[in-house]
Amino acid sequence: MHIENYPSKLLESAISEFAGLPGIGRKTALRLVLHLLKHDLADVEKFSSAIIALKREIKYCSSCHNISDSKMCNICSDDKRDHSIICVVENIRDVMSIENTHQYSGIYHVLGGIISPMDGIGPGDLNISSLEEKVARGNVKEIILALSTTMEGDTTNFYIYRKLHKHPVIISTIARGVSIGDELEYADEVTLGRSIVNRTLFETSINSGKK
Amino acid sequence: MHIENYPSKLLESAISEFAGLPGIGRKTALRLVLHLLKHDLADVEKFSSAIIALKREIKYCSSCHNISDSKMCNICSDDKRDHSIICVVENIRDVMSIENTHQYSGIYHVLGGIISPMDGIGPGDLNISSLEEKVARGNVKEIILALSTTMEGDTTNFYIYRKLHKHPVIISTIARGVSIGDELEYADEVTLGRSIVNRTLFETSINSGKK
Repeated sequence: MHIENYPSKLLESAISEFAGLPGIGRKTALRLVLHLLKHDLADVEKFSSAIIALKREIKYCSSCHNISDSKMCNICSDDKRDHSIICVVENIRDVMSIENTHQYSGIYHVLGGIISPMDGIGPGDLNISSLEEKVARGNVKEIILALSTTMEGDTTNFYIYRKLHKHPVIISTIARGVSIGDELEYADEVTLGRSIVNRTLFETSINSGKK
Repeated sequence: MHIENYPSKLLESAISEFAGLPGIGRKTALRLVLHLLKHDLADVEKFSSAIIALKREIKYCSSCHNISDSKMCNICSDDKRDHSIICVVENIRDVMSIENTHQYSGIYHVLGGIISPMDGIGPGDLNISSLEEKVARGNVKEIILALSTTMEGDTTNFYIYRKLHKHPVIISTIARGVSIGDELEYADEVTLGRSIVNRTLFETSINSGKK
């Protein structure tokens, strides 16, 4: 249904702001705005100021560029983590996803995007030079590339590989294969092919399952 | 995926605010907040102030209780509309939906909810007394009840009917039946049954289609 006539300009501008968010159409925006309207002014002010405070006061970790409340994020300032292994990810959502697996004890490096000429994003727009500096300083044993398997992800992987491979550091990528629980017949050919080429020793898979 | 550890308290509180909106989970909230973070501070302030302005300055039409920028909404202040027919709806979304059909030229009365003892909403919480006053003043020929066909909607319909039937006014409800374009075999029994009981003259249906 197309909504043409809003009964109020104030309503319309609030809806337009919400409809500018990804995945929110004008009908959903209307529902969200009407929901907010039902609340007290104090609640709406709380909503509004949480966003402003985030934008004004948010910091990025000076080491890994993850979102942080202080100059150094919780992960980078944690001595128990292995600072010699760095997992390179596109954004902070990927950091959270990997943290939730509880399988990784190294640190991260957030690129802040991937190389995408179509969107006008070049290597200079990403946090790649700081990664190279970190590796050049030594003490880094392994770089794990954990970017999307898209053309942009592959381009970025290759760009980083070319920048880093002159340093004495292992460069690995996360394993690609058939998802756990998925049936083989439903896996796409590329993934299935990759899972055969990059097969692991059965013992390894048992051990990683036990972790 | 359950997200446990947010890298920042500011991020977490902004996410919590968004996740309080209907139909928005914490993962979607994270995506929306990160989207806002990518924008300039000015854009985020615009977003934030649009909501605050709406909440602070919004008015409700003194006659029909629809959202409005002024004391009387556009519909109630329109002389070309038939002020003797009042369509009773639950909320302002219903007004917009009916307006979009371009089939109705009367005015509205927004109840602001429906009677729902489970949610603690009684007749006193709704704009029912102002509807009765409007009818008592005369000049109203017909009241069209356009509430949901739920138990709450039926209860509210019946409550309004009891309040108004002593006045010389026609009380009607919108037609219920098989949706246009739907095949009979997929319609539920209650709807199909109702559509047979409340069948209309073939001539009437031709004319309403021509409107």
